Amino acid sequence: MNRTEDHSPTLTEDRPLILVDEHAHAWSAKDARARVREGLSGPTAGVAAGHTQVNLISVPADWAYDTLLFCQRNPKPCPVLDVTDAGSPTTVLAEGADLRTDLPRYRVWRDGVLVDEPTDVRSHWRDDLVSFLIGCSFTFEWALGEAGVPLRHIEQGRNVPMYVTARPCRPAGRLHGPMVVSMRPVPPRHLPAAIRESSLLPAVHGGPVHCGDPSALGIEDLRRPDFGDPVDAEPDDIPVFWACGVTPQAAVMASRPPFAITHAPGQMFITDARDDQYRVV
Amino acid sequence: MNRTEDHSPTLTEDRPLILVDEHAHAWSAKDARARVREGLSGPTAGVAAGHTQVNLISVPADWAYDTLLFCQRNPKPCPVLDVTDAGSPTTVLAEGADLRTDLPRYRVWRDGVLVDEPTDVRSHWRDDLVSFLIGCSFTFEWALGEAGVPLRHIEQGRNVPMYVTARPCRPAGRLHGPMVVSMRPVPPRHLPAAIRESSLLPAVHGGPVHCGDPSALGIEDLRRPDFGDPVDAEPDDIPVFWACGVTPQAAVMASRPPFAITHAPGQMFITDARDDQYRVV
Repeated sequence: MNRTEDHSPTLTEDRPLILVDEHAHAWSAKDARARVREGLSGPTAGVAAGHTQVNLISVPADWAYDTLLFCQRNPKPCPVLDVTDAGSPTTVLAEGADLRTDLPRYRVWRDGVLVDEPTDVRSHWRDDLVSFLIGCSFTFEWALGEAGVPLRHIEQGRNVPMYVTARPCRPAGRLHGPMVVSMRPVPPRHLPAAIRESSLLPAVHGGPVHCGDPSALGIEDLRRPDFGDPVDAEPDDIPVFWACGVTPQAAVMASRPPFAITHAPGQMFITDARDDQYRVV
Repeated sequence: MNRTEDHSPTLTEDRPLILVDEHAHAWSAKDARARVREGLSGPTAGVAAGHTQVNLISVPADWAYDTLLFCQRNPKPCPVLDVTDAGSPTTVLAEGADLRTDLPRYRVWRDGVLVDEPTDVRSHWRDDLVSFLIGCSFTFEWALGEAGVPLRHIEQGRNVPMYVTARPCRPAGRLHGPMVVSMRPVPPRHLPAAIRESSLLPAVHGGPVHCGDPSALGIEDLRRPDFGDPVDAEPDDIPVFWACGVTPQAAVMASRPPFAITHAPGQMFITDARDDQYRVV
């Protein structure tokens, strides 16, 4: 295939393409999910703009209460937007969607160890899996963009950088672990808009947990994120940190439940819900 | 006792006094809880102004997941601010507090039937009880008052009126039931401030679920609330309805768990948390 002539995103098993192309922001949520189901994978920042994106964690029913309680006790990183009944791959947030096929890439965990990163988890699915859909900060990027805030990772065609912090979550039952954050470099004059617009969307992490010196969160080097890609900042940019829905994956690594399925960081499930539904004013 | 000479609140077993006196708004949260623990009972609107008030529902551990999921699926009436470990009567929201003694009045339920309304539930307590503390709209009344919104029920020394609506909650496991709302008559010129100030506090029910015609919620007669007291409105006042933390009690009545303890409507637990902690901006 001649890539210079055909710009439509295509699955390349060994080298997944970035979903964001010049048209991806205008896809409907349903179209985006259909393309993902057909095999398209990659980070979803900027895709189907205006639609709520969510993190996934599916655990055996025996772990569902601990997981829901962990989310309740850590609402900044883990704002729960839907919980499925055990075994069900459907959600009220996306008509006709299948949670086993409609995420760009998954991570499969056994005893806290990553064992597979497929684009389809039907072969891993279990009838006792309860799935938690957790708000994602990609959701408020649309609002930030509308308010004039530059989004460096989207400009640079990269996944957002994410970091495991030294800040522990409040434990719940058998689950414990550190908070994970995403980072966006923000020019000082855009900082008020970035804080205001994200704060009005508490269901997708809300306002930042920290602005400025990364060492306050125990982050040693912004150029070496734990997940996603490093992003180039302009000289005056301030690093702004939002709580991140990869936090449950850090809890899986720390707490070692026997089995879990999650999304791959940055490769989110795109729902039918509009960002505006979650704005408090 | 000569009530005209002594205005200090006193427990009268048969006729509980309204907690709100000329000094109650200035009590610290700890003082308010200490007075309640000594036996003071009555509605808590306006008490310890600026502190977060919460609804209580305690259920056997076997019902905890259904309850937490019911709250997650109905975040407007049931915003969860804390969940205790089974059997524990303490909460991170109030230092040194005992959930068995520090609410003005409780309701004890067996198989969905109200069996007792004590001011202390130590004799009813069980080691398997998980307690859910749910945000209360009394919390944002302070913000409404600061913004100049008149609060009729407080002016009139009454409990806020609450109504069971015809709007069903989204069920969760064995729990189902209708949404309950509280109502405050608001003068039209104060409506924007009432909506804005409450919306910025989603953890204590957030913005109203309805303004105006009560029949849209299936409420037939505002003068006959299902809980609390009727309140006198001025001619131009618009009835404004907020989702209410008595909703879990309606679910208890509809779903009949074998055992539950709740607060008595309007007689809330007063936490150390400040309203401001829950403001999104």
